[in-house]
Amino acid sequence: MSEVFADRRGRLRDRCAAAGTAAVLVSRPANVRYLAGAAPPGAVLLLGPGAEDALLCPRAPTGDPVEGHLDDGLRTAVLPAGGVDPAVAAAERARAGGAGSLAVEEHHLTVARHRALAAAAPALTVTDLGTAVEQQRVVKDEDEIAALRIAAEITDQALGELLESILVGRTERHLALELERRLVDHGADGPAFPTCVAAGPNSGLPGHRPSDRRVEEGDFLSVSLGASYRGYRCEIGRTFVIGTSPADWQIELYDLVFAAQRAGREALVPGAAYREVDRAARQILDGAGYGENLAPRTGHGVGLEIGEDPQLAPAAMGKLDACVPVTVEPGVHLPGRGGVRIDDTLVVRQEADGGPELLTITTKELLAL
Amino acid sequence: MSEVFADRRGRLRDRCAAAGTAAVLVSRPANVRYLAGAAPPGAVLLLGPGAEDALLCPRAPTGDPVEGHLDDGLRTAVLPAGGVDPAVAAAERARAGGAGSLAVEEHHLTVARHRALAAAAPALTVTDLGTAVEQQRVVKDEDEIAALRIAAEITDQALGELLESILVGRTERHLALELERRLVDHGADGPAFPTCVAAGPNSGLPGHRPSDRRVEEGDFLSVSLGASYRGYRCEIGRTFVIGTSPADWQIELYDLVFAAQRAGREALVPGAAYREVDRAARQILDGAGYGENLAPRTGHGVGLEIGEDPQLAPAAMGKLDACVPVTVEPGVHLPGRGGVRIDDTLVVRQEADGGPELLTITTKELLAL
Repeated sequence: MSEVFADRRGRLRDRCAAAGTAAVLVSRPANVRYLAGAAPPGAVLLLGPGAEDALLCPRAPTGDPVEGHLDDGLRTAVLPAGGVDPAVAAAERARAGGAGSLAVEEHHLTVARHRALAAAAPALTVTDLGTAVEQQRVVKDEDEIAALRIAAEITDQALGELLESILVGRTERHLALELERRLVDHGADGPAFPTCVAAGPNSGLPGHRPSDRRVEEGDFLSVSLGASYRGYRCEIGRTFVIGTSPADWQIELYDLVFAAQRAGREALVPGAAYREVDRAARQILDGAGYGENLAPRTGHGVGLEIGEDPQLAPAAMGKLDACVPVTVEPGVHLPGRGGVRIDDTLVVRQEADGGPELLTITTKELLAL
Repeated sequence: MSEVFADRRGRLRDRCAAAGTAAVLVSRPANVRYLAGAAPPGAVLLLGPGAEDALLCPRAPTGDPVEGHLDDGLRTAVLPAGGVDPAVAAAERARAGGAGSLAVEEHHLTVARHRALAAAAPALTVTDLGTAVEQQRVVKDEDEIAALRIAAEITDQALGELLESILVGRTERHLALELERRLVDHGADGPAFPTCVAAGPNSGLPGHRPSDRRVEEGDFLSVSLGASYRGYRCEIGRTFVIGTSPADWQIELYDLVFAAQRAGREALVPGAAYREVDRAARQILDGAGYGENLAPRTGHGVGLEIGEDPQLAPAAMGKLDACVPVTVEPGVHLPGRGGVRIDDTLVVRQEADGGPELLTITTKELLAL
């Protein structure tokens, strides 16, 4: 495992060297974690040539020393107290090491930090690294996929237990908290994102904040949750009916969203354009007259972040590769009535390898609970 | 209540006009919430003159319209789909409205967003608003303090219930989750910050992430938690001993930290320098030989953010005003043995008004649980 991070740093360095950049400063936390295997709060990663590669950390609150090296030999340095910005310290090291230019993440550094960094090392040409690290993160290695697989198992377990409990009369907020507790019980670092439980008229709303609405007979109940395991985040979404039997409109809406979600899943092949996957799911909902208020994307990449690239959306540019984990999560919400959302995490695989690998295996039958 | 936000915006506008700035763009979420009373994810606030004041929001995931006005008449606009950055849209509005300059939060906007904004409105001079809104937020009005008071009541209730339950044998992680559930039970929006439960050798470590360490007889157990209520966040920290009676070293260390915390609380008078409050607490720990590994600050402001200004630290510049809520939270951690942290949220008040108002009233006696 310890060579994984050094290898990733090597690939980034090669890419930057080819683009003519000397040193590289990575500040976005998920990118730091990807390249260094750890991301203490506020830490930044400096890659040579010039200065030695180093993970620069702000002083720990207790002053405990963290000087030393990570498993793979990466140098770590805890900065002295007094609030020196690690990004500024990195620029000084790069200059002292003789680097002529430093590529930074302009989509993450604030204007104020960027200015302080440039002022601290005026001899350095500061350029934009852009989203080079994010792009490198899109295709996952098998260790990363293994972590996602465990995250999905934990998620399925937590959801499965909830389904065995009594739901009527409980609030969205309490059900969400219980799901998060169960995620941790089963070994998650924590929830991958704020757990969404949406009952009755709230069902099917993506990103709904759990409220004091209680679950009632006849409700649609949609839940969206995911475990984070070793930093890797997965996502599942299901919609259930509360009571003995669903109403006709509920069955119809469910079947429609299910068909859209299946079409999206089936479109996950290496080489497929992101927008084609989106279209496969979207056109089914559109054809049924629900085109107006659909979410801007029907899926997205997952990994160290929820919602990372690729985006499965009408205007997205790019094509799927094998070993890219994504969600497929179309949904329809009818204002005042509720709705349906069905969401899986899958890994794109070659057809010869069996096609898309479904990580979240909780049933997608319409359960009446 | 609805005039409160318009009044805050008016004060900011007056301050900026005096500094020669025309329009103002506020992007930092807590600042947006402070001035608009709401902060949908990604929303920014544009204040004229030039363009009409407006809260610009990215398109909601479901496409539900949010066009209209907030309670106090503030115009809201949901941007069309397609990923237009609300900050860029705001710059275009400011220019179209005839503003010559736009002050932005350079400590919050990324380099990439700042560049896009400047490119979209090249006729506009883009200046730095600095931390003008943060400074305006330091002194709270009575509505804000009332929200903090309720947050503290909720926090005391959640902690009080935990103390009545059996603790030995349970993990830090489960105790932290239970505290967070109880916060929500009692009406919190959620936890104000990640709840910290630290047992045995972990006790007294600020920011410790709850682990699978189980609570054992003889442990120090330190907990740090807080409720968020209507966006306002408070903080409490207590340390207990598990078992029938504390050891001598535990009593000594507890008494020392208690004395330091009391000295800090007693130093909270309007006009006291931030660093004097810090010194009052710090010198007691220092005098007992624990000066080396103390946290860089012994307290901080609270409000819409945990850890907002003022900072109670050796190098902090400034003096306390009345109606500033702060924490006082010295602690000592002995590596391998554990430690003590005692933390209250108080509001600075004139002596004639009874001196500092203690919001978190859970006992600070050393309880053996």
